[in-house]
Amino acid sequence: MKITKDLYQGSLALLTDFYQLTMAYAYWKSGKAEQEAIFNLFFRKNPFQSGFTIAAGLEYVIDFCNNFTFNKGDLDYLSEMKNSDGTVVFESDFIEYLREMRFTCDLEAVEEGTVIFPHTPLIKVKGPLIQCQLLETALLNITNFQTLIATKAARVALAAKGDSVLEFGLRRAQGIDGALAASRASFIGGCSATSNVMAGKLFGIPVSGTHAHSWIMSFDTELEAFKAYADAFPDKCIFLVDTYDTINGIRNAIEVGKILREKGKEMLGVRIDSGDLAYFSNIAREMLDEAGFEEAKVVASNDLDEHIITSLKIQDASVSIWGVGTKLVTAYDQPALGAVYKLAAIKNETGDWEPKVKVSQQSIKINVPGEHQVSRFLKNGRAVADMIFLPEYRKGKISATIIDPIDPTKRKRISFEDFEEVSLLKPIFKKGKQVYNCPEINVIKQKTQDNLLHFDKTHKRLTNPHVYPVGLEENLYQIRTDLVFKMKNYDKE
Amino acid sequence: MKITKDLYQGSLALLTDFYQLTMAYAYWKSGKAEQEAIFNLFFRKNPFQSGFTIAAGLEYVIDFCNNFTFNKGDLDYLSEMKNSDGTVVFESDFIEYLREMRFTCDLEAVEEGTVIFPHTPLIKVKGPLIQCQLLETALLNITNFQTLIATKAARVALAAKGDSVLEFGLRRAQGIDGALAASRASFIGGCSATSNVMAGKLFGIPVSGTHAHSWIMSFDTELEAFKAYADAFPDKCIFLVDTYDTINGIRNAIEVGKILREKGKEMLGVRIDSGDLAYFSNIAREMLDEAGFEEAKVVASNDLDEHIITSLKIQDASVSIWGVGTKLVTAYDQPALGAVYKLAAIKNETGDWEPKVKVSQQSIKINVPGEHQVSRFLKNGRAVADMIFLPEYRKGKISATIIDPIDPTKRKRISFEDFEEVSLLKPIFKKGKQVYNCPEINVIKQKTQDNLLHFDKTHKRLTNPHVYPVGLEENLYQIRTDLVFKMKNYDKE
Repeated sequence: MKITKDLYQGSLALLTDFYQLTMAYAYWKSGKAEQEAIFNLFFRKNPFQSGFTIAAGLEYVIDFCNNFTFNKGDLDYLSEMKNSDGTVVFESDFIEYLREMRFTCDLEAVEEGTVIFPHTPLIKVKGPLIQCQLLETALLNITNFQTLIATKAARVALAAKGDSVLEFGLRRAQGIDGALAASRASFIGGCSATSNVMAGKLFGIPVSGTHAHSWIMSFDTELEAFKAYADAFPDKCIFLVDTYDTINGIRNAIEVGKILREKGKEMLGVRIDSGDLAYFSNIAREMLDEAGFEEAKVVASNDLDEHIITSLKIQDASVSIWGVGTKLVTAYDQPALGAVYKLAAIKNETGDWEPKVKVSQQSIKINVPGEHQVSRFLKNGRAVADMIFLPEYRKGKISATIIDPIDPTKRKRISFEDFEEVSLLKPIFKKGKQVYNCPEINVIKQKTQDNLLHFDKTHKRLTNPHVYPVGLEENLYQIRTDLVFKMKNYDKE
Repeated sequence: MKITKDLYQGSLALLTDFYQLTMAYAYWKSGKAEQEAIFNLFFRKNPFQSGFTIAAGLEYVIDFCNNFTFNKGDLDYLSEMKNSDGTVVFESDFIEYLREMRFTCDLEAVEEGTVIFPHTPLIKVKGPLIQCQLLETALLNITNFQTLIATKAARVALAAKGDSVLEFGLRRAQGIDGALAASRASFIGGCSATSNVMAGKLFGIPVSGTHAHSWIMSFDTELEAFKAYADAFPDKCIFLVDTYDTINGIRNAIEVGKILREKGKEMLGVRIDSGDLAYFSNIAREMLDEAGFEEAKVVASNDLDEHIITSLKIQDASVSIWGVGTKLVTAYDQPALGAVYKLAAIKNETGDWEPKVKVSQQSIKINVPGEHQVSRFLKNGRAVADMIFLPEYRKGKISATIIDPIDPTKRKRISFEDFEEVSLLKPIFKKGKQVYNCPEINVIKQKTQDNLLHFDKTHKRLTNPHVYPVGLEENLYQIRTDLVFKMKNYDKE
């Protein structure tokens, strides 16, 4: 699947902030364009006060990088940009430089469907400064959104405790791709199907849906509408029962269910889309059981999210399929992830890598410098800690202390031989050539489920989760602290 | 501009909920596919507790309708869908029916940039039931999002009280088109420019941007970085001063500003992206003034929205350009509008239009039935009320009482001759043929500003705004009430 080719015509190279282009030009002017740099894409807080995050969006990122060239239209647009005095913004030699530019970076990333935590790079880009910079905005756009939605979907699926969750969000999603990418990420996170037919076609996700209130309203009576639907789809009858009066609607559904049964067909269930879902789902269950439709499902929808589903479960609502829309695909309670993309190191004139930090008054905003790697340590299939480290300080060591990047009083000693160690960052591109095969979407979805099994249920609790330990290896911690002190001039005091 | 052609390859006909297709099939099977219907797209509440909403998205909708055909790939996908028993979901004759289907509806809509209120149709579609249904989801997706963002942008611009507002949201937006459509709607709502270069190219919006923290960090010192930027863009210097230490950053900016001045160039200003914006903007202003840079601007950014801008204004912050991103393009405090698309009337076998209502336990969810129109009444350029009415009850009348659709005790008498009357719904398509010319985006942006001038400032207040009166003409109100009673069987009690 080629998203940008299938979905977007031509180039997405201009899907960037203008300042990336002005910086690119200024790097080029000052002779720094090809200086090698390392940038990391990471977030600082799990969304939704969640105890974990699910990585998603990598296949879009790969596609974006593979197609990263400025086409004629892009270059014409840039070369026609004028300053207020009528001179061109970008010299023609720079336009030619962009025309010849190809993606030649190394790129490592966390695979889609991986459980991931703050401060860990989701993506690491190593290559010419100008390319690293020109990729930044698109990589953030793609990764921020899909990771956000996959995480939300995982939470909703956890709340549903094994029931099917259907994603219905297209009509309220933020734009066309806001819907398509959300359907994809929702499936990765744990949804069983989407209502979005185009997402089904593009991504190979199962699609589902039956009928709307307007179907009922277009007939003189509800009963007539149910009968006509049963004639068209005798094997796919989930009747929407709340157009006029829910209890009467259930009665009509049962009547048509009996007609179907005479023809050797079974009604699949009823859907309730308004009113008190705890109350009406239990009434529906009782009425269906009493009429001999014990196998018919009750589908519920109407502004559901993980918290409402949890509440309905606690109330013993008789719902076995959950339709979620707006709250999932817009990540309603936190509609942006806030991942950032920061310079971690730059190669100086003598060919050495210089680690870099962005200093801030808030500790949480200080990035992790250097070309680091991330390992997850597991014991008997259970994850116990993630370590962010510089490989050169790992050699020959049999143990390490990891230190929380925000609160240095939180530490953990890890003896490597006691654990299974998994490296989270996988090589995706080497010198611009793709070295990674994107898994099928079903495989990614399964990875999410398998990954979540590695974590204790206290980390997966929806509210006030137990914090999973992620720390900087002690040498890396010290390097970062020294750099911050140097930048703040504390070393001169 | 052809969005779907420029941006999306091929057809968007599958950008719909699957139930639209199952209903389409069932309409077709039951012989109702070509029955004429009227659907209205409307919302029930202004977003953000705003006193008004700005319509946007129509140009996308027009483009979608003009390109509405199922292509071979779409039809292959649908014809390969199987039931669990291996039979096809859709008969081949239905696939052929879809292949031949063309958009032949009448469509009326409120123009982009119009101030609009709950219950008023933003779009009215009249045509074969099957087409009305197949358009629903895409029309909602497009209109919900762009209207939401245009409204948010208008609120942000109102808070900025004439200062420039720059939209910076691409990196945190919900997907690729979540960013592009947001940049477009933000400009319509009141932003001056976007950072999104692709939006600039596609929609003709001005783009803006200078440099990021990574620019500074890629040099050994901030001063060196500012000098290098000034060499590349002597006419476009807005220096980002908070990479290491904001006050020292302002000092460095002034130093480079003086060098520029020796060359006959002027520094445009400084940008502050973190820390206390009230405090640092005032310090920046003082330092700049003292150094003789009275014309240099202070640009502020960092999770801004209309409320933070208002607070900074109250605190006399010295900011004259506002960069807004995440909170604007995701409509952070309410990331979905919730507009719906409801059957308002259907032509029965005798050729008469039957008005339709969807009954609900909540009055606010009951739609307005029939083929209604909407007029805005103005006096001396000031809007006083909107009336939703059926044209047949208007003929020969010199006045009417309008009744609030939710609270019937709220009424207003309007003598038509006292007011200028503006019809809000414009013909866009007649029998599938476009009869409307889309204005240039600058004209739409101006329309927003002009339209807002028609409303008293109490309606534009950001919190607890004065409610603008929108009502149903008394006959329409009665028809709706009678229909609801009939549907609830009260008329039989």
